[in-house]
Amino acid sequence: MASLEHPRLAMKLDVRALTFDVFGTVVDWRSGVAREAEAVLARKGVALDWTAFADRWRARYRPSLDAVRRGERPFAILDELQRENLELLLEEEGIRGLTGAELGCLSRAWHRLDPWPDVREGLARLKPHFILATLSNGNAALLVHLARRAGLPWDAILGAEVARAYKPSPEAYDRAAAMLGLEPRECLMVASHPEDLLAARDRGFRTAYVHRPLEYGEGRALPRPREAFDLAVDGFTELADDLLP
Amino acid sequence: MASLEHPRLAMKLDVRALTFDVFGTVVDWRSGVAREAEAVLARKGVALDWTAFADRWRARYRPSLDAVRRGERPFAILDELQRENLELLLEEEGIRGLTGAELGCLSRAWHRLDPWPDVREGLARLKPHFILATLSNGNAALLVHLARRAGLPWDAILGAEVARAYKPSPEAYDRAAAMLGLEPRECLMVASHPEDLLAARDRGFRTAYVHRPLEYGEGRALPRPREAFDLAVDGFTELADDLLP
Repeated sequence: MASLEHPRLAMKLDVRALTFDVFGTVVDWRSGVAREAEAVLARKGVALDWTAFADRWRARYRPSLDAVRRGERPFAILDELQRENLELLLEEEGIRGLTGAELGCLSRAWHRLDPWPDVREGLARLKPHFILATLSNGNAALLVHLARRAGLPWDAILGAEVARAYKPSPEAYDRAAAMLGLEPRECLMVASHPEDLLAARDRGFRTAYVHRPLEYGEGRALPRPREAFDLAVDGFTELADDLLP
Repeated sequence: MASLEHPRLAMKLDVRALTFDVFGTVVDWRSGVAREAEAVLARKGVALDWTAFADRWRARYRPSLDAVRRGERPFAILDELQRENLELLLEEEGIRGLTGAELGCLSRAWHRLDPWPDVREGLARLKPHFILATLSNGNAALLVHLARRAGLPWDAILGAEVARAYKPSPEAYDRAAAMLGLEPRECLMVASHPEDLLAARDRGFRTAYVHRPLEYGEGRALPRPREAFDLAVDGFTELADDLLP
């Protein structure tokens, strides 16, 4: 037992800040985007499978970030990319006739997402002990709106916009640790996506995997990763249980 | 009456975010730095006028920022500039023999300052109605430490470090508004220093002057400015009174 507990204890003593992926890890984007899409489009007479609409919008997310990461286009904040992707999706779906205000409101659906049920309690318990920061590909305004609506007690909004680089680019992690005035080993990256955690680990961060079986919908859970992260938990209350004395 | 109230009402309807100067406006740097200097140096056998020590350290602040602003040196975060200035000051005062840990602790005195008595109540009342962000020359880690220690409920830590530019440079204000996703007229700059407010106004911000007669010590209050800002208040509870319905 002692030999197993030792590395975890060493990690606990080092960690000063928890840095969080947000979409999927903290908030349930799929049900939220579906709800917001229905709220705007149903009254225009559109009938759709709203979660499928959310999935198709989300499917365009990664390719747009990759275009920035590969230097094929200049950095643009996520709000802009989501807006472009929405316009392409609406065209593909044959949905026309939205006013500018409706388009703006719908494109900001990603500002109005709900946290998973364990998030608020877990963050409230962790807050007195650790600096809590976003390390998200969302832009600052989006993350501020999410946090105010959902009551997320971030100490700092960090990530792609301040780094001008999207995860999993190294700069995103490096700049977050630097802005917190910390060594990477003093930062614990918390995410439900192994790729994010592997990139963080490559930059020296500690890593906590959070299993979110409902991110892509009922019955569509990705398997638990085989990589060994410093922690693996089923939610933020378990994260608090593991990290707090 | 109506003609006087009209512009203020227009401002109230527009403003979405309050952006705060921190040193002097939110926290009392002078008594805090004096207390922290005494805590580190008295046990080394140093006897000094501690508030005069704080004043001399602070006197070096503006010239270092100006050197960055004029492009005479590359951008460096405030923690680095304060550390350099501390080392020069200690040399000038003939204070020697500090360990690296003591020097680090003393140079981070600016992370451990107390808010003025009206700050917490005012911010708590304003928080549900406005986005609250720093727009400070302090670096992110410093501002996070200040906020956690003092219970300041910022939604975002903005200012010199994210803009890579020190106030009153235009970029500092422009980048803060952009990161909040707001037009400058939707941001109200709150500061006790007229120069900061004038620079913010030049970039299109609304402005609120806060009178802080004790910033430079008893009997050393600067006169109230003659410029007409959108608001002029004696503290953050009065700011809340003025801004809230």
